[in-house]
Amino acid sequence: MMIRTITLIGAGNLATQTGKALKKAGLEIRQVYSRTEQSARELADLLTTTFTHKTEEIDLSADLVLVAVKDDAIEEVLACLDCRQTLLAHTAGSVPMQLLEKHTNRFGVFYPLQTFSKKRDVDFSEIPICLEANSAETLNELKELAFRISGHVQEIDSAKRKILHLAAVFSCNFVNHFYYLGDQLLEQHQLNFDLLKPLIRETAGKVMELRPFDAQTGPAKRFDETIINNHLSLLGNQPELAEIYNFVSGSIFQAHKNS
Amino acid sequence: MMIRTITLIGAGNLATQTGKALKKAGLEIRQVYSRTEQSARELADLLTTTFTHKTEEIDLSADLVLVAVKDDAIEEVLACLDCRQTLLAHTAGSVPMQLLEKHTNRFGVFYPLQTFSKKRDVDFSEIPICLEANSAETLNELKELAFRISGHVQEIDSAKRKILHLAAVFSCNFVNHFYYLGDQLLEQHQLNFDLLKPLIRETAGKVMELRPFDAQTGPAKRFDETIINNHLSLLGNQPELAEIYNFVSGSIFQAHKNS
Repeated sequence: MMIRTITLIGAGNLATQTGKALKKAGLEIRQVYSRTEQSARELADLLTTTFTHKTEEIDLSADLVLVAVKDDAIEEVLACLDCRQTLLAHTAGSVPMQLLEKHTNRFGVFYPLQTFSKKRDVDFSEIPICLEANSAETLNELKELAFRISGHVQEIDSAKRKILHLAAVFSCNFVNHFYYLGDQLLEQHQLNFDLLKPLIRETAGKVMELRPFDAQTGPAKRFDETIINNHLSLLGNQPELAEIYNFVSGSIFQAHKNS
Repeated sequence: MMIRTITLIGAGNLATQTGKALKKAGLEIRQVYSRTEQSARELADLLTTTFTHKTEEIDLSADLVLVAVKDDAIEEVLACLDCRQTLLAHTAGSVPMQLLEKHTNRFGVFYPLQTFSKKRDVDFSEIPICLEANSAETLNELKELAFRISGHVQEIDSAKRKILHLAAVFSCNFVNHFYYLGDQLLEQHQLNFDLLKPLIRETAGKVMELRPFDAQTGPAKRFDETIINNHLSLLGNQPELAEIYNFVSGSIFQAHKNS
């Protein structure tokens, strides 16, 4: 069976961007569910479809019910549904596929590895979509769907998907937090964040070609104590930042001291 | 006076890429000095010029002597030179301009804010070049030079340059280390770093448009304890990584808890 119609459970960042990509690829988004009516309506408007905030009204007749809510909410929503005949897939990095087993006999995972914000559209064609399914048939259905929006579709089991999610937290969420800390420092001294943008682009650009280990530069790698102490004294009135600085510098030094 | 000839002190990452950019812009690199003969020769070959590893042979007749060595080495090299008539500039983020005062009466700072590796060429036209000088005349000379390789030339004093350098450590060196930690995790589980590349590009891409605070996503921001504990248990055998995870997650949560 080819998936042509989708009910979307969730209206957050991932649901919004994935829904837009699927609709653009010609899929019919039959309905959007969200716990809050307003979120459901907003995304439904964007996808020109219907919506509900009541679990009993969720349209289970779609070819696929895609569950794109917070991890803890997956079980909560599914507990309300009678979906034994439905193809179910969740989109979560860290939730094992087997969580779906007790709800239906056709299930899988459809995990797009990307950082999504509602208001920033992304090019889905480059996003790795990690798939898992409880049968070869279901895997094929999900694969056919995934290839309609991305050129990078891979089968990855729940154990490896967890690791991928963890690595993504390091390489995306933590990275963004360091952009934020840099931004804060500049703001405190009336300097513009734009100054850092070429550096941020190049830092990301470098690891497209070099291994991150080989791309490393800066005082911690060289163990340049003068600069490190200088920086720590600049952070004298921000002990939390100084602690992070010390900690991450130590970790960089450990990684490079024998190289 | 317009700077036409340059003696380059140093043959590291920054000296190499800055030297290449200056030569490409039509400047004459008159000589390369490095403490080790081989490094001096390698960069001189690249710039088709002469080289020395002896301080007494450094050519002080160039219009500018650009000191691009490790912070601690600047004073060391200059102490050997009789350069009272020479226009001197250093390229260091954290070294105050006044360090040069006792060596000459024409001095300044020429600080390109970027991460440089010898083997990866960068587009200098986008790099902010932060200038400082001890006189309006010297500032103009350095400005004219800087604009020959970059469209982003700014006057920034030593105190603000230090802050910029510190923010750059957070937004570049620390960021790259988190790419490295992600890479390590994937490698331990036979997963390919390529999987993270679209995510890394998008994470950097987002902050070109959004403030990093607004771009943040992930479990720490939402304080999703299930995922956080899950990740910490995956790191059970790597206490140092678990500690970093905990620490940075706490810092993200602190930043977002009132938003």
